[in-house]
Amino acid sequence: MEVSPIFNLDMKNSNHFTVSEIEGMEKRFRTNLINSITGFKSLNLCATISEKGQTNLAIMNSVVHIGSDPALIGMIIRPETVPRHTLKNLLDTGQYTLNHVNKKIYKRAHQTSARHPEHISEFLTTKLHEQYTDKLRAPYVLESNIKFGLELKEKIDIKANGTVMIIGAIVELFVPNDIMEADGFIRIDKAGTVAGSGLEAYYRTHLLARLPYAKAYKKS
Amino acid sequence: MEVSPIFNLDMKNSNHFTVSEIEGMEKRFRTNLINSITGFKSLNLCATISEKGQTNLAIMNSVVHIGSDPALIGMIIRPETVPRHTLKNLLDTGQYTLNHVNKKIYKRAHQTSARHPEHISEFLTTKLHEQYTDKLRAPYVLESNIKFGLELKEKIDIKANGTVMIIGAIVELFVPNDIMEADGFIRIDKAGTVAGSGLEAYYRTHLLARLPYAKAYKKS
Repeated sequence: MEVSPIFNLDMKNSNHFTVSEIEGMEKRFRTNLINSITGFKSLNLCATISEKGQTNLAIMNSVVHIGSDPALIGMIIRPETVPRHTLKNLLDTGQYTLNHVNKKIYKRAHQTSARHPEHISEFLTTKLHEQYTDKLRAPYVLESNIKFGLELKEKIDIKANGTVMIIGAIVELFVPNDIMEADGFIRIDKAGTVAGSGLEAYYRTHLLARLPYAKAYKKS
Repeated sequence: MEVSPIFNLDMKNSNHFTVSEIEGMEKRFRTNLINSITGFKSLNLCATISEKGQTNLAIMNSVVHIGSDPALIGMIIRPETVPRHTLKNLLDTGQYTLNHVNKKIYKRAHQTSARHPEHISEFLTTKLHEQYTDKLRAPYVLESNIKFGLELKEKIDIKANGTVMIIGAIVELFVPNDIMEADGFIRIDKAGTVAGSGLEAYYRTHLLARLPYAKAYKKS
């Protein structure tokens, strides 16, 4: 067994926090720090409709890929925070859409995280517009370029803190013609899609590289 | 109940794919498309050590925030793909570290997705270096600027496709002094952290804005 050189962690240019120090932090400070430690986040607007026909829109920063065949998408929801109407509608109707947040709408998308009364749709308060297809009752966001509709497959309760993970199956998806590459990869940056960090930072992006499929190095 | 104007989805500039069309796609095409539909991804190197002391390093693009108090982080692992040694070590030892992928190391980080024999550490093949603290047996990545160590809290089996979600509690974390703001938010872009898309695209980022906490609009 070969061993690589080992370094002890040099902490002179870094802040080091242990779990007890993190637990002792002021609440807002800890929330900002821990929310920015995971790296960049996807930003999607999750749109739902209640059984009575009331639409709802909420920004989500925890949408993750679960599988391609079948096409499954995961999303973390904290039941006690703003997306609680989203969660209720999604569980009641079994349907929702995810719509990329882009450069033109990120300020309006952010505004969906404010607490609104249940009878006022965030589509109205943010001046984003509803769009419908014949596949789903849930609305799409007109101003979003990349969007997909989902059916609820699984609701997972995370015991560690009462958070919920929603697994959905893609029913249909929309991608602008001019950003699809021949091998299926889509240039989401060209559609203006933004990345998030923390709870309130928005980033534009520039492609560094698309690397080839990684193969093991040959022994020289 | 007020209603907002409604638009039907204009598909003339968009590709529209239904679930049956997605199922009928060539495998690689579907993988690329569905992996780029969720938006930008966090990119972290997950480092583990086996019970026998063999280290392992794997790039992860599905690390998500679960909670701040306690500080909990989620990560999706597909047991049949390359991170299987990572999953085994993590379950055997209950420990792992996550290390941000940055501009200087993204090509080496990508290379960890190649299939190596179990007895060869990706630290060696990629020339990334191990670092240790007195809190964990699992190594950190020297070349990564933002990194945190975790203890396994929960393993969740996602029934829909056999994927696993790992929930970990942060034991300690390291953040460079000069990128921490007074309220706990960290400028991960200033540390060179990159964002991902699909399975092999790497992006640098530029801050558009950090928006204030969203409050409901007042009725005018």
